[in-house]
Amino acid sequence: MTVLVFLDPGSEHGRIADATRPQLMATDLGATRGDGIFESLLVIHGTPRKLQAHLDRLDVSARAMHLDIPDQHAWRRAITTALTEFAATEQADAPEVVLKLITTRGAEGAAAPTSWVSAFLPPATSQAQRETGIAVLLLDRGYDSTIAERAPWLLQGAKTLSYAVNMAAIRYAKDQGADDVIFTSSDGKVLEGPTSTVLIARQREGVKELLTPRRDSGILPGTTQGALFSAAEEAGWKLGYGPLEPDDLKTADAVWLISSIRLLAPVNSIDGNPISTSPALTFELTTLLENIV
Amino acid sequence: MTVLVFLDPGSEHGRIADATRPQLMATDLGATRGDGIFESLLVIHGTPRKLQAHLDRLDVSARAMHLDIPDQHAWRRAITTALTEFAATEQADAPEVVLKLITTRGAEGAAAPTSWVSAFLPPATSQAQRETGIAVLLLDRGYDSTIAERAPWLLQGAKTLSYAVNMAAIRYAKDQGADDVIFTSSDGKVLEGPTSTVLIARQREGVKELLTPRRDSGILPGTTQGALFSAAEEAGWKLGYGPLEPDDLKTADAVWLISSIRLLAPVNSIDGNPISTSPALTFELTTLLENIV
Repeated sequence: MTVLVFLDPGSEHGRIADATRPQLMATDLGATRGDGIFESLLVIHGTPRKLQAHLDRLDVSARAMHLDIPDQHAWRRAITTALTEFAATEQADAPEVVLKLITTRGAEGAAAPTSWVSAFLPPATSQAQRETGIAVLLLDRGYDSTIAERAPWLLQGAKTLSYAVNMAAIRYAKDQGADDVIFTSSDGKVLEGPTSTVLIARQREGVKELLTPRRDSGILPGTTQGALFSAAEEAGWKLGYGPLEPDDLKTADAVWLISSIRLLAPVNSIDGNPISTSPALTFELTTLLENIV
Repeated sequence: MTVLVFLDPGSEHGRIADATRPQLMATDLGATRGDGIFESLLVIHGTPRKLQAHLDRLDVSARAMHLDIPDQHAWRRAITTALTEFAATEQADAPEVVLKLITTRGAEGAAAPTSWVSAFLPPATSQAQRETGIAVLLLDRGYDSTIAERAPWLLQGAKTLSYAVNMAAIRYAKDQGADDVIFTSSDGKVLEGPTSTVLIARQREGVKELLTPRRDSGILPGTTQGALFSAAEEAGWKLGYGPLEPDDLKTADAVWLISSIRLLAPVNSIDGNPISTSPALTFELTTLLENIV
């Protein structure tokens, strides 16, 4: 089941709503134009992970979209309400819960955005793909890697509700027998997954290096990648920020797609060709990740 | 007011719903992922214009998105229900009504898409911009003009609900004092407006030529442009299909953005520089358009 809490000016701690009943206006610009923003985060044993980083990124998305969203205190109160409500359901014992924060531009003609928090169980594929890994396709995102600074109207730094292309890319990959996608730029750089950040590990002469694509290449800054990088640096890893090219993926010691809900998903193959994997590194990084709050 | 009719398997002529009350699930993938498709069309004195062309384009979008949508008969019945309902409102005398057809991938976990028709009055800007014309900015769409054939996962031929970038581009233009946008490709071709098709007229040695960008350049095929081209050809115009470059806009006798609701909006300036306009050609083409069913 899904627990639903709307952020209304009238209810300080959020308004609990019945998720099995219609709750959105048919004219909501979120539904008619994909005109809104979101964050998804994982709750482990009742504690939301990296909540501040998600709230901060929601604010960045809101500024890029000129959206006036509730302040972080209001989000935190609504999240507490949602988790309290979830703890009263028969799924209270689930070790992992997904929280989704959404703001749309509101119903047509309405003065205010529509904002809500939902809490629900993660999809079963999430756990499975952490364990068995994934096959990915490289797909052209169509943009070159300098687009973000050149064309702010393309919203490259914002996590918007307009995910039709992200979803279509994953469908395309599944039709080809793969599980997920790594987007590349038209100038041949590695970008990101449709719902994840790319991470690669290299070990050279005893030095362990963790790399991710350049943040200014038109990708979404990954909150999980960011947190893992901090933890890995403390644990003695060297960090690197692209630019990365497909060859870097194929010659790495290991590649993962990293995201808030699925966490680390090891990449087993790229375009049908097996690549190097490392259960030991996956274990090491997963342990680092588990200790992040 | 808005009239709302859902296409449900259970109600042959569509289910009338109260548009002032919430009617969509908060987990609908239209609202959470912009994962759906739409069409907007104009109804003049009770008759929907180019209905067949819109239903056909909806089918094209559905195929690109792997969406199983209701058949055209079901859409036609729901449209009739919506217009009958609209005719019973206090706005029955309005000469122009907008119809919007939407299908989303449905609520999370639901087996079927969500489909509905809404009927409402056109925005006041629509009429105003036909009469006074618009100032446009040229903005880079980030894609090159061969992307559509190369990368079907980018959904260039589909009219999806993921319009956040289109809306952001128009906001950007308004912030700069303009009214609308003409997108260009990264290889310097003229593409389309965020919600319209580009049309230019040239008169050379007594020959009147109407031009529009190449359809295979990653733009949406315009139903209004298509209908106008047929009518103009019968009226003796020569037709041309790009490729067009920004210089072609600046040296044309007239440029318009053409779309289903606003119809012909004359472009008065590009990037702040006045361009040639022609009230006579606007009148001639508007008359042709008015005779299209």
